[in-house]
Amino acid sequence: MKKDQFTIPKGMIYLDGNSLGPLPKAAADRVVDMMHNEWGKLLIKGWNQAGWMAQPVAIADRVGALIGAPPGSTVLGDTLSIKVYQALAAALNLNPARKVILSDKGNFPTDLYMANGLLHSIDRGHELRLVEPADVSEAINEDVAVLMLTQVDYRTGRMHDMNALTKKAQDAGAVVIWDLAHSAGAVPVDMAGSGAEFAIGCTYKYLNGGPGAPAFIYVRPDIAEQIQPALSGWLGHDAPFEFDLDYRPGAGIERMRVGTPPVIQLAALDTALDIWDGVAMADVRARSIELSELFIAEVEKRCPQLSLASPRDAQARGSQVSFGFDDGYAVIQALIARDVVGDFRAPNIMRFGFTPLYIDVDDVLRAVEILEDIMTNRTWDTPAFKQKAAVT
Amino acid sequence: MKKDQFTIPKGMIYLDGNSLGPLPKAAADRVVDMMHNEWGKLLIKGWNQAGWMAQPVAIADRVGALIGAPPGSTVLGDTLSIKVYQALAAALNLNPARKVILSDKGNFPTDLYMANGLLHSIDRGHELRLVEPADVSEAINEDVAVLMLTQVDYRTGRMHDMNALTKKAQDAGAVVIWDLAHSAGAVPVDMAGSGAEFAIGCTYKYLNGGPGAPAFIYVRPDIAEQIQPALSGWLGHDAPFEFDLDYRPGAGIERMRVGTPPVIQLAALDTALDIWDGVAMADVRARSIELSELFIAEVEKRCPQLSLASPRDAQARGSQVSFGFDDGYAVIQALIARDVVGDFRAPNIMRFGFTPLYIDVDDVLRAVEILEDIMTNRTWDTPAFKQKAAVT
Repeated sequence: MKKDQFTIPKGMIYLDGNSLGPLPKAAADRVVDMMHNEWGKLLIKGWNQAGWMAQPVAIADRVGALIGAPPGSTVLGDTLSIKVYQALAAALNLNPARKVILSDKGNFPTDLYMANGLLHSIDRGHELRLVEPADVSEAINEDVAVLMLTQVDYRTGRMHDMNALTKKAQDAGAVVIWDLAHSAGAVPVDMAGSGAEFAIGCTYKYLNGGPGAPAFIYVRPDIAEQIQPALSGWLGHDAPFEFDLDYRPGAGIERMRVGTPPVIQLAALDTALDIWDGVAMADVRARSIELSELFIAEVEKRCPQLSLASPRDAQARGSQVSFGFDDGYAVIQALIARDVVGDFRAPNIMRFGFTPLYIDVDDVLRAVEILEDIMTNRTWDTPAFKQKAAVT
Repeated sequence: MKKDQFTIPKGMIYLDGNSLGPLPKAAADRVVDMMHNEWGKLLIKGWNQAGWMAQPVAIADRVGALIGAPPGSTVLGDTLSIKVYQALAAALNLNPARKVILSDKGNFPTDLYMANGLLHSIDRGHELRLVEPADVSEAINEDVAVLMLTQVDYRTGRMHDMNALTKKAQDAGAVVIWDLAHSAGAVPVDMAGSGAEFAIGCTYKYLNGGPGAPAFIYVRPDIAEQIQPALSGWLGHDAPFEFDLDYRPGAGIERMRVGTPPVIQLAALDTALDIWDGVAMADVRARSIELSELFIAEVEKRCPQLSLASPRDAQARGSQVSFGFDDGYAVIQALIARDVVGDFRAPNIMRFGFTPLYIDVDDVLRAVEILEDIMTNRTWDTPAFKQKAAVT
């Protein structure tokens, strides 16, 4: 749909945009322009004159438009881990009488680590209760203070029903946090329609903001001003440049800001978001399903050694397809050596992301052809491909 | 000393490197190279092949070299506010029987806000005790769990005696945290020699890393592995890519990492740090004192309306000089209009940073000449100069 707007190395089929999106062609020019003409010429005046100080909310509204969040309800900054902490701390304070945080074992580990770190710090008898993803709905009861889930499973692509689970949890008196790491830019999301109190996510996957692009947090506007931020940094203060000794939270979503925004990263992200102008998420979704279905059908036909690890029902999947194979790590390395880039997640998951902005039917067919060749000829079965690196 | 390595707009005298350092000439090329040749060509493989994953410690060691921290004791990431939170949470756990955090009223507000946010969250009866900067030493007693100070006062430039206060606090059984925001790259610091447990700081001031450059945290190596991180993000895990459900802190300083590092910002910062190769902090300090003393002498001679707000003793000052004047805000605006860039901090402080890497005697003399002209002719006394903007 927009392939010409991305830098994809010649010959590479990039099926890993669910981990790190590719470089938007316009991004480097924009960053250089920002560095020379804003930082270089304006220096400290850039905070006002180039709008740096306002960007965490202004650019976040562009992300908000892709997840059904009204303007002024989303802010960029920090990392997803930090945003988990902010959201969960706030959610617990909204529901102080209850002690259970319900999540699932398919959640991305950092969400669970940050939750445990917070619970250990506050030490007030909370329990982080983890169930199998399929059992979440059943596990919602009147003990649950907070339901905290990642919508799309990072390994299998299995997608929770956001609206149904939010309603059930809220009916039971829980506050709801959605991690949209694998949703934003991948599937249609309607935060306002869902009624959920919080959402968090990252911008370096399907939004192509670049390595280390800032995270986002959405807070339902009617509750934003009830929040006493746990991470009460100066840029979340109502008047940061008054330099009061006492913290006074800023209006609405502004209070979820913490420290100085990463202005260089924001320039890259802002340019990456230009690509979404005029793109309907429904179209992206339809095309993603088409590509994913084709990939599954072709792989199952031509690579019988692999077993589908993602839901077969397209409506229950995000924008990735995973196959299980015991030597999946080696297969992924063999694919990368042939310029088909997917990735591996322990214990045996081979992940392939389908991002219609820059992946088309020819890419899918060519990727399966190479995968078939690797499986048929066992070219993955070498010590070099089997030796694990630190990051995959 | 290195003026030719920075982009300073023609005619501008930039005395605000204590707020945001100027653009290093090589930084934009490096960032573009990183974007095209690392992100663009390697995509996800950049995490290993371009060393992105290791950069938060590798580049931090270059900062460490400027603050007397041994290799492997410092890590980059997040913002200074977040690093305050990490350090204080860890420090309190190292001293659980005591309840007082001692700081001073000259500390930068975000340090105090973050501390209050943490204390409110953990709710265990701690007290954040604030005294006047001159009274800190006397206020150290055996109630103090943590002494948390910013070495150089952001308004006045007044500098605490790090070694003496650290020793006194530790002798009284306290854990010590130093905020080096206005120290790193400005004055010689010897973290290892001081014996302090923690230091934190930012890299966008005297280290010229660019707007939103990541913060750093130093942990004294012998205590690093006693820390159970409050912000227990996946990149602080011992093996992030094993995706365990349980958090297991990484070795030493690695556990103070949280989320995905800001790789684009790190490229700019790494280039900015090249400028320090072969520069001795003692030389920078000597030159900074020379420039500051000249500025004070000339201003006091030629602008009798202004009163020195910084310590007169050069050894008790950082690398900035502040003057008090009730209409200081308007004077700063009038100076900026003449391309002499300082800044203003409430209620009446005009700040001027002296960064010998790119400021010389001619700059100082010319700045005073323009200041004298503005004061003599009261050109600051217009509504336009008096109208305050959101960020100054």
